[in-house]
Amino acid sequence: MSPGAVFDLKAYLNEKRLLVDAGLEACLPESNGLTSDLIRAMRYSLFAGGKRLRPILCMAGAEAVGGNGTDVLPVACALELIHTYSLIHDDLPVMDDDDLRRGKPTNHKVFGDPIALLAGDGLLTEAFSLMTSPEIMERVPPRTLVQAIRLIARAAGHQGMVGGQAVDIQWEGKSADQKVVRFMHTHKTGAMIAASVASGAILAGAGEARRRSILSYGEKIGLAFQISDDILDIEGDSETMGKQAGADEKKGKMTYPAVLGLDESRRIEEELVQGAIEELRAFDVRAEPLRSIAQYIIKRKK
Amino acid sequence: MSPGAVFDLKAYLNEKRLLVDAGLEACLPESNGLTSDLIRAMRYSLFAGGKRLRPILCMAGAEAVGGNGTDVLPVACALELIHTYSLIHDDLPVMDDDDLRRGKPTNHKVFGDPIALLAGDGLLTEAFSLMTSPEIMERVPPRTLVQAIRLIARAAGHQGMVGGQAVDIQWEGKSADQKVVRFMHTHKTGAMIAASVASGAILAGAGEARRRSILSYGEKIGLAFQISDDILDIEGDSETMGKQAGADEKKGKMTYPAVLGLDESRRIEEELVQGAIEELRAFDVRAEPLRSIAQYIIKRKK
Repeated sequence: MSPGAVFDLKAYLNEKRLLVDAGLEACLPESNGLTSDLIRAMRYSLFAGGKRLRPILCMAGAEAVGGNGTDVLPVACALELIHTYSLIHDDLPVMDDDDLRRGKPTNHKVFGDPIALLAGDGLLTEAFSLMTSPEIMERVPPRTLVQAIRLIARAAGHQGMVGGQAVDIQWEGKSADQKVVRFMHTHKTGAMIAASVASGAILAGAGEARRRSILSYGEKIGLAFQISDDILDIEGDSETMGKQAGADEKKGKMTYPAVLGLDESRRIEEELVQGAIEELRAFDVRAEPLRSIAQYIIKRKK
Repeated sequence: MSPGAVFDLKAYLNEKRLLVDAGLEACLPESNGLTSDLIRAMRYSLFAGGKRLRPILCMAGAEAVGGNGTDVLPVACALELIHTYSLIHDDLPVMDDDDLRRGKPTNHKVFGDPIALLAGDGLLTEAFSLMTSPEIMERVPPRTLVQAIRLIARAAGHQGMVGGQAVDIQWEGKSADQKVVRFMHTHKTGAMIAASVASGAILAGAGEARRRSILSYGEKIGLAFQISDDILDIEGDSETMGKQAGADEKKGKMTYPAVLGLDESRRIEEELVQGAIEELRAFDVRAEPLRSIAQYIIKRKK
């Protein structure tokens, strides 16, 4: 884009989303074999209308450091597979027991609990198959690829997302302080969002300093995004949320608004977004998508 | 070992098992943090007395092609993490609903269903973190490592183990033919056993022909091992099995003995073991552990 031009985030998100949808379709086509139900269940949640935020962040992270977004597409798609698995397992009766996700019946409501469990397991595993596919090997040096896979695996596992989910479950209905809520959010949502944008930068060959800036940007928008979701859960209506508004409160979930109140939560969210954009001060116009995505977190509620 | 000497499988298995236990202990130490319960749950099943067959096969696969078993230890341990996750999810009430595993209460019986689910997710994810750790990167070229990770991911996912579990669940209580039973076993158990031994050979730098032989060896002992388990389920007593004998029959599980009878199952098992050993005919004395492990499958029942 030319300097001074206004960046069209909506067009950017649309264009990238189509790329991701095509990539996901190619990695998990329909099947008529013995495992057709399993694959149908995996595809059901994968194509249930997700915004593809994590894959887009991965591509935007690559572009911000001068790389090509399309080159990192397999890893970008793998991030969506991991995100989708986490939603399926989160919705299971033994976890949040949700009937609706993005306005549609949840996976286990359609396919039953056992297949939903396995669909989640299958999506998580397929992510690592996709991240080691010939398509990405043609475009990224193997040593760099291994670094990116490690970053993502750590962000997804017990030191990241799964750890955050465990804390979420164990503190449900209990009175928690800001430290615990912060731990839960930075792990449950923040870690994978940070890993999404940072893996894109790593795959595009960013040096240590730029990797650090991008990772810090990601950590800040990751937490801001979760706080924003919690605020939406209180203020939003069920239609725009695709799930029941006020659901968190009913379950006694730990959220920033519940612990700190709405106003203080809004202030922290705003501060995180500004801080994230500040991390990119040394980056040129190619980081405009990342700046714009950070601002969008706040704007989407207005 | 010197030519002509009798190979001591018991000593070999013991020595390797200690290495694997130490490797697993290092990758998942106890923790006092907010996720301590999750980590306790992961460790509970990881150190519940497993035979470490898959890690040992990985190391033996590396040795059979002239490599060093210890060099592939992180990947070997990752295979045990994947195996352990699959057992935890398999035992959950929504799946097999088992109370006992290796003679101890199953994970969800001790930690509850939500933490057991997450412990499985955490173990599966940690496997890929371990497979991309600095320790393995020091010993294996990154391109080779990516090939091994891909083989393992595909064997574990919907094209392998998870696919086999889905078929197992869907055909429970129904009348299946040998084709379906074969698909279920080669996917549910066979794929990961074959990937275990083949990943070791790949990591040790084996060429295409030797990789193929080792993979074929692994596929044959993988299926033989599952048939052997099914026979043990009928003939064995609960103490040596660590679970209730006859449990498969009660649940209407598809097994080789159920579909083909005991005698025909024993014949196929024997044929597979001989075929597996035949795959190694061009290998020297360093493949003796693999030959001996193949024979052990049949011997353990006598």
